[in-house]
Parts: sequence; C-alpha cells; structure tokens
Amino acid sequence: MRMSLGENMTVTLFGESHGPAVGALIEGMPANNELDLDQLISDMVSRRPGSGLASKRKETDDVEILSGINGGKTTGMPILLLIRNQDVRSKDYSFLPFQPRPGHVDHPINIKTEGAADLRGGGSFSARLTAGLVAASSISRNIIPKEWTIDATVGALGGLEGEEGIALAEQARKDGDSLGSRVDLVISGLPVGLGEPWFDGLEPALARALMAIPAARAVEFGRGVNAGEMRGSEHNDKWGENMTLSEEADGALGGMASGAPIRVRVTFKPPSGISLPQETFNQISGDDGGVSNQRKA
Amino acid sequence: MRMSLGENMTVTLFGESHGPAVGALIEGMPANNELDLDQLISDMVSRRPGSGLASKRKETDDVEILSGINGGKTTGMPILLLIRNQDVRSKDYSFLPFQPRPGHVDHPINIKTEGAADLRGGGSFSARLTAGLVAASSISRNIIPKEWTIDATVGALGGLEGEEGIALAEQARKDGDSLGSRVDLVISGLPVGLGEPWFDGLEPALARALMAIPAARAVEFGRGVNAGEMRGSEHNDKWGENMTLSEEADGALGGMASGAPIRVRVTFKPPSGISLPQETFNQISGDDGGVSNQRKA
Amino acid sequence: MRMSLGENMTVTLFGESHGPAVGALIEGMPANNELDLDQLISDMVSRRPGSGLASKRKETDDVEILSGINGGKTTGMPILLLIRNQDVRSKDYSFLPFQPRPGHVDHPINIKTEGAADLRGGGSFSARLTAGLVAASSISRNIIPKEWTIDATVGALGGLEGEEGIALAEQARKDGDSLGSRVDLVISGLPVGLGEPWFDGLEPALARALMAIPAARAVEFGRGVNAGEMRGSEHNDKWGENMTLSEEADGALGGMASGAPIRVRVTFKPPSGISLPQETFNQISGDDGGVSNQRKA
Amino acid sequence: MRMSLGENMTVTLFGESHGPAVGALIEGMPANNELDLDQLISDMVSRRPGSGLASKRKETDDVEILSGINGGKTTGMPILLLIRNQDVRSKDYSFLPFQPRPGHVDHPINIKTEGAADLRGGGSFSARLTAGLVAASSISRNIIPKEWTIDATVGALGGLEGEEGIALAEQARKDGDSLGSRVDLVISGLPVGLGEPWFDGLEPALARALMAIPAARAVEFGRGVNAGEMRGSEHNDKWGENMTLSEEADGALGGMASGAPIRVRVTFKPPSGISLPQETFNQISGDDGGVSNQRKA
Repeated sequence: MRMSLGENMTVTLFGESHGPAVGALIEGMPANNELDLDQLISDMVSRRPGSGLASKRKETDDVEILSGINGGKTTGMPILLLIRNQDVRSKDYSFLPFQPRPGHVDHPINIKTEGAADLRGGGSFSARLTAGLVAASSISRNIIPKEWTIDATVGALGGLEGEEGIALAEQARKDGDSLGSRVDLVISGLPVGLGEPWFDGLEPALARALMAIPAARAVEFGRGVNAGEMRGSEHNDKWGENMTLSEEADGALGGMASGAPIRVRVTFKPPSGISLPQETFNQISGDDGGVSNQRKA
Repeated sequence: MRMSLGENMTVTLFGESHGPAVGALIEGMPANNELDLDQLISDMVSRRPGSGLASKRKETDDVEILSGINGGKTTGMPILLLIRNQDVRSKDYSFLPFQPRPGHVDHPINIKTEGAADLRGGGSFSARLTAGLVAASSISRNIIPKEWTIDATVGALGGLEGEEGIALAEQARKDGDSLGSRVDLVISGLPVGLGEPWFDGLEPALARALMAIPAARAVEFGRGVNAGEMRGSEHNDKWGENMTLSEEADGALGGMASGAPIRVRVTFKPPSGISLPQETFNQISGDDGGVSNQRKA
Repeated sequence: MRMSLGENMTVTLFGESHGPAVGALIEGMPANNELDLDQLISDMVSRRPGSGLASKRKETDDVEILSGINGGKTTGMPILLLIRNQDVRSKDYSFLPFQPRPGHVDHPINIKTEGAADLRGGGSFSARLTAGLVAASSISRNIIPKEWTIDATVGALGGLEGEEGIALAEQARKDGDSLGSRVDLVISGLPVGLGEPWFDGLEPALARALMAIPAARAVEFGRGVNAGEMRGSEHNDKWGENMTLSEEADGALGGMASGAPIRVRVTFKPPSGISLPQETFNQISGDDGGVSNQRKA
Repeated sequence: MRMSLGENMTVTLFGESHGPAVGALIEGMPANNELDLDQLISDMVSRRPGSGLASKRKETDDVEILSGINGGKTTGMPILLLIRNQDVRSKDYSFLPFQPRPGHVDHPINIKTEGAADLRGGGSFSARLTAGLVAASSISRNIIPKEWTIDATVGALGGLEGEEGIALAEQARKDGDSLGSRVDLVISGLPVGLGEPWFDGLEPALARALMAIPAARAVEFGRGVNAGEMRGSEHNDKWGENMTLSEEADGALGGMASGAPIRVRVTFKPPSGISLPQETFNQISGDDGGVSNQRKA
C-alpha cells in the first residue's frame, strides 16, 4: 500500500494516528528554494485541530525537517518532514475490530491485512495524516509562481451558505450530531495550455487528489452537476477577442488551462463519529475531516 | 505528454482523430487469458458512432492485434491494438487555430505546443480515442473475476430520466442544439478491502479515470452532492450482523471496498459542437462524447 | 511483463520475432521536433540483418509512423512506430519447448507463462525487437543537443582488436562456431552535473539499459575491472585549473557528468546459436545479437 | 532529484552525511511480516564504520521505526526508518566547493544545484546513506523465501584474493594509500522464470542497483568480461535431463532465472580519500565505500 501523489514532484505520506509520528517525504523538489519557517508554522496552526467546530485532539504539530535543507534553502534532495504524535490514546480503540465504526475503513482494512492493520483512530487513514500533507504543501509554496493563486472557502454547511450554515453546524453540534459540507476552490492565473492530456489532465489530477481527502464524496468542475441539465447553446463559452474567455467559462478544457479561473466544488459527507446514541458502537468518536462533534483526530 | 492509465496493468492510448490511426498498448496483461474476438467486435460496435443521437462519423473500427497474442491467448507481453481511421477529413478543420471552437482544447493545445499540435477534429483529445480504450477494456474482460460486475446506464438527459430525457434530447437535436447528460454506474461484487489508501483509493482512482472522459464535469460517489446537506445520524450506515451493509451504504470507505455496491454518477456537459447559429465559428461540429447534433467523432 | 525504458521520455517495445510486427511507442517526446526520414532509413539499414558476419534474416524494416507526427514535426503526443515482420518462419521452431536452445530464454519463459509464451525465434526476447529501439532512437536524435556525442565501436572480437579480431571471427564462422565481443562507447559533451543521484545516476541508468541488450554479460565504466587492481594514488584524477579533468578521468562521479568523456565497455557472450554439432538440439540457430554463424533474427 | 529503487516494493533514501539524519522510507511492504529486531541490530553493526580497514567515523546507527509497524508486525503501510547522525563535523568541509576532492561528486553537484547542495562529507552522495539501505534490506528479509539465498564475499583486494589481498590492503594503508576491490555475489534458489523481460530483467535490475553503490566501476554476470574472449562451443551451457543446467551456466537468461546460480562480480575503484600527499586538496578524507585509509563516512 502506498500514499504517494505527484509525478515531477512527489509527496509520500507516512504514519499512523496513534503511532509515534506522521509526516511526509518530498521528492523532486528543485534546489535553491528559500524555506519560510513562519509560513510553515502558520500553515500548521491553520490545520491544527482543537478549536471551534473541529476535532478536539491536542497536538502542537511541530515539524522536524530532517533532510534536503541546508542553510535555509532546499538542496534538491528528498525532504523529510516529521511530526511526532503527542495526544496518543491507544486504549480508546480496544473495541476494534469487533465493533467497526460506521463510515470508517476499520472493517475493510482489517479484512485486507488479515488483522495486521493499525486500527487505532483510523491508523494511516486518519485525517491526522493531512498534517504531513499540509507541511509538504507549505514547503512547496515557493516553487509556485506568485501569479498562480488558489482560493479555498467553506462554500456550504448542511447545504446552507454563510451565517445560516454556521448556525446549522452549531445546532448539529448541540444535538450531538454532525453535518455535511462543501468546499469551493478557485484556481487562477495558470498559463493557457498548462496541463496534460487525458488521464493526467487538470480535472482528472485534481479529482484524484481531492477525492483522496477523507470523507470527500463528490467533485465538480465549472458548472458541475448543473452542466448535465443545460443545452450547448447555453453552456458554450465563446472565445472573445484576444482569445479570452469570460469568468464563467470552464477553466480547463481537455485537461489544459483555458485562461479562465478553474472553479471546483468538493462535497464532504457528515463526519461519521457522533455522540448521538444510535447503537452502542456508534457512539465512539471517529477521525474524519469536516465538521464534527467530538472527533479526536 | 502522456495518455497512460494504470499501475499493475497499464493502458496507453495513441493516435489522432484525423491521423492514420488510433489505438492502445496494454502492458502488464497476465499470460494465458483467452481472447474473445466476438466480444471484442460486439464492444467495438457498441462504441461506434454513426447512429441515433450520437456522432455521424463513419468508421468500421476493425481492431488489428499486432503483438502479445499467440494461439488465441495472451502471452503476457505488451498487446498492441491498432484501429485505422477511415473517415478522415483534414480539410474540414482549416479554420483552426484562428477560430477555436467553444468548449474545445483547440486554443490551449495550440499555445502549449507552439503550433505543433494536430488540431484536426481535436487530434489526440478527440473522443475517437475512446476506440482504443474500449478495445483495451474488451481484451481485459477475462482477467476480471465473473462476480465483479459493472453496470452503466444513461441516468439522465438534460436532467430528465427515461422517456422524458430522450424526448428532450430529440427536441434539442431538432433545434440544432445539444444536451447535458449523466451516466450512472453500479460496481458490485468487489471483495471487502479491495483498494488502496489515500491517492490510489477506489474513489480517487475512479474519479481520475472518469474525469478523463471528454466533457465530464462532475463525479459523485454514494450520496454525492446530497451528502453535503445531510447529518451524520442520517448518513451513517451501520455494520449489520456478519459485518454487512445495506445497499444504500457507501461502497468504498477510505478507498477500500466495503462490501456494498459502489454507486457513481458522472455528469457530462452538453457537447459544444452545435449547428444552431451563435457566431460563424460556433457552427462547426466538435468531437465531444455525449448527446450531440452533428459531431463527426 | 513490460518492456519500457525512461522517465521523462519513455520508450516501450512490443512485438514478437515471428509474430505480425515489432515496434515501439514513444511517450514524452517534446513537440516541434522535425522528423528526419532519411536519417531514420539510414539508421534502420545500419541495424538490418542479412549481411557480413551478422544474422541472415531478410527484412526491409520499413517503419510506419502512425501517431504523434503532423506536417513532418512531432506534436508532443505518443509516437507509434510499427515495423511489420516479413521473414516469418513459425514452423522452424516446432522443436520448442521440448528442446530448449542453450543460452536462450526458451525454457524459463515457458515455465513462467505456463506454456503461453510465443517461443518462436525468442518471441519478445529476440534481438529483432532492437528494430523498434533503433527506430525510436533515430526519431529522438533531434532532441539531443548537437554537442552531446556518442561514439560506439566494436572494441574486440574474441578478445582481439581490429583486423586480428575480424580474422578470428571469420575463422569461427568457417568452423561453424561463434565468438564473444566487446563494444566500446565514448559519450562526450554532457554538461557538468547532468545526471541524478544514486539509482538514477548516469552509470546505473546506462548499466541498466546496456545490460538489457540480449547477450550482454558485463558493463564497465572508466577503468572498469582494472580499477579493482589500482591504488588511490594511481587512480585519482585531480581537478585541474578551471575545474577540468584529464581525458582519462571518470566521466561520471556520483551519477553525474564530471566534464570528462564517459567511457563504457560492454561485453557480449558468443551467440548461442551455432551450427557446429554439439547435440542435436544445439544445432538450431538462435536470435542473439552479436557475431553469429547462422542466426535468423 | 530522487533516490528510489523498486517497483512492487520501493525503497527511498533520504538524508545527508553531516545533516541531522539519514534513513529510508519503504513502500509496498506486505502486511503481517514479523519484525526481527535482533537481525536489524546485527545487520546495522555489520555495516557500521569504525573498525579494521574501513572508515573511522563513530556512529551507533540506532534505527527508529516511526511508522508501518504495529504489535511487532508490518501493517502494510509505509515504513519510516530514521537514523540520527552523531559524528557530524560540518567545519571539516569548509574547503568546499573551492577545492573539490578528486573522485568525488563535489564539483558536479555544486554546479548542478548552483551552490545549494549540501557538500559536507558528500551530502546525500555519501556512503553513509547505505545505513538506510541496510536498515530497509534488513526489515525486508522476511518477505524473501528462505530458499532464496544471496552470498556476498570480498572477492579480491587490489586484484589479489584471500590473505594476499588483505596483506596488500594493509600495506596500502601504511603507505597512506587506498586499494581497489571486488565483491562476488552468488544468488541461488530463485524459481525458474523469475524476472522480467528487457529493461527490467534480473541482470539490468541488478546492474542498476549495484552500479549505484558509491565507487562501483564494473558489474559482470556469469563469465563476465571473459565471455568476450570465448567461442559459442565453449560458452554454451546445454540443458541437461529434467531441464537442469550446470553450476557454471548463466543464472539468468533473457532477464529470467534459469535455475543455475546467478554469479555477479562488482568492481570498486580505490577510495579517493587518501592521506598520501598528492596536492594539498587531495589530502582530505572522502566518503567512498571500500577499503580506505582515513575516511570518515
């Protein structure tokens, strides 16, 4: 089993939710990129659980950079990022594998590995592994041209936007329940033609990466599921003068950047770990990303 | 630029819509699989354009098998599948690259390759390349256990199901317009635990492959975009006795088969090539898959 | 089983010695490279068997270019090169698999595939597959900077150089026997630092590619096996003024070009197919590259 | 730049000679393999420098296993092996990059990375990185069937075998010099047909891996460079009754195990770091593997 993403540059995740550590190994990083430690700390704090509507797990998420950096710059060699786990509670998961949690991989991975998987808190399937992913992404910020921008916002909570969504999430929390959500991305500034054909196109590559986030259930590009209800005369985006498109046009065509912003929506299921009594074995908290009640990861 | 999919077994597409040929090279095929030529012919006929609501291009789509087969069986070596193009109309595309078609990759690929791309009929981005993909899939049928089943149906045309959808598509056709669509897949019989973690999970892998089909705009798993509006208490699928799930449960959890059917929906935009006058350069037929008016590929 | 080489650019071989065709699929070729058909014809003639000390097989080796080329230039998409076999003699190999030829893969591949391999003339293991490799290399000449040069010469026949080696080979031929050989390569003009660390270094990458040529038994870099008998004070190549090295210095250090020419020697075993009677089943001609008596491929 | 080896199972090295750590990440390890910690300690001690004719660097080489292990067994997920550096002497290398050591990658990697490489002690090119490789190999022992055996011995020192070679090495050491060497491998017990064709054959795969060891200059299979001086009638190994070969026969044919032992010889150049005065900048100790005078890594 592997946890790698990327061709020219590769990020490989490792670690378990309640093992000694999580982290990432970056291969293919160009040499001579300055390391921005303040940015790294800031990005790790943004991801860190323990506040508001998210998981209550306590972690400082200090990142040890153990290779590939010299004198504050990348050397071009593999970069190892290590994050020690601190809030480790092995005994909390003694009910596994006999009472697999709903919506979790507990049972499938137990069968697949004939009992050898580390099931505690979801093991390597825990959203805790996004700590390594965030650290790797932060270290990679400098190699992305400044004019390429990615904007990610919570688009909806329980189908409602803005304040209404937040109110709904707080109500679900009070009820001991959880809520589905949607994240909206806008990627701008990519040069026309960036991308690859077919299976490595921008949409397939993004769909693969985004659907790998725990609890993701749908990914939409441009007009998404609404495109299925439209006519060509309505959906068609004409090339304007100087070969430009409107802001509403598809940002990727045939896997390649068209010059318009790429609009993506990712839908997440409600976290499976809730305290509302369903059955005894359903009361135990889980590890999903998203808006949860008492998750630990 | 590459057009390859798969790890243990790899399919690589090649060819251009109006070049000499299209096809596929299969690597990693196990030895000793019987070739079913009747099935291959039948699968190619199913894909072939020229009838009903689909493209009018005339192709016999004869498949030459040029390597990797001996005595009617696979030898384990790479299999080359070659399909000659017959209905080739280079001159029909003399308006390119100056008048790029809406919703097509004409302009981005022309910029990317500094004018070297074969733009005729979409070149390698044409839905004609699915001929190689279908041939490769047909040759691979025997290596999939009989109890694994994949059922694909047209779920909706223009947002309407069944007869209503067909009527809507016929009306769009009469109007010189095209219509969006949705294909529904149900994958059953996979053994519990089949899959890989994270980026190679069933959902990410399927999302990548499905989003590579020309004109795909959204892919949904299980309850899809509706999951974003649900509560955990409503969405949670409890493990029943003998560790089984209901038919409605997510068929993949953490990238691995749960034992329930995997339900997938793929939304396609309306084909961009329509005859309804928008602007001069919009009247030219395109190459998208889907329900079109006068496409040629 | 796969027959692929290369990361940024990949060449995949396909075909069998006595099947319908052999050839190569090139992925990752940059766009806008001019095709030199005269060079391609000349390169194929150089490789073609049928003359002098080499195999007697009759093949015209016409190369069909079926994708990835438009208007005499590469489009950046996969390039399919197809070479039909003409001198096909299936019946000559009816003694297989019962009497495997010495020094051939007949028996191992028959066991591996449980009888499904195409054994005729070595199948996919035949030196005939170098036809696809030579065609792919010829098509790729233009993407290599002019100042990078590769010079390959027959270094020795039966351990003797020049005229003496040729005389020895002619005598072996008269005796119904075959002779071992050595090819010497000198690679010059690579920019200092070209290469990768460890397993993808110049030496490991070249060693892999060269040891894949049928009948190769040893590969040496720089002073090769003689380096094992030297002292450091004797072997050390000092960096001169302007960081240059002598012509005798190692051309690759730690997998990266040092600025000195890279000197490589490849030793080939004597072709196994000889007419000199050993045992009945040894009289049958084989398919190795090298200096043979009556090989057919 | 990458430092990865393997397809079904992949080992990726990381770290620098005088950075915080070295180690390896193993992907694709099967689940349920027992960890043998005594074997791991024993294997690390075997590799550890500091004694006899080898490097004088002081390292305990304790291996931290930070992921992929639970309850003393592999879980099937990536295994991170971390070895902290202790005998780190950054200041010893202040002469770099101005006075690159002979036979080292100092200058090429400095040019390649435009000064960003970690040059101290060879950085990631140091033989110190074999610590990670040895740890990964030790962890992987259990997945190799017991009947597969690999025997590696020092075949020659300075061209002499046994006691004579040792005497020569001791004399070189007294002289402040170093000596070339040869390691002989015998791989036995592989099932007939194990391997892959062409570029992934046993010989190409072994040649790649072995030529990646720092200071390797030649790799030979079977009769090696001697095969170039032989006749076919002399070299041919006939298949005996029950399709067996003699012990002297080639152990791999066409990339696949023949049933005979695979005999491999690897020649290493004399370590470049010697104390014998050549020029000022030649007196500094290096990092090669092999028989050295005062190497530190």
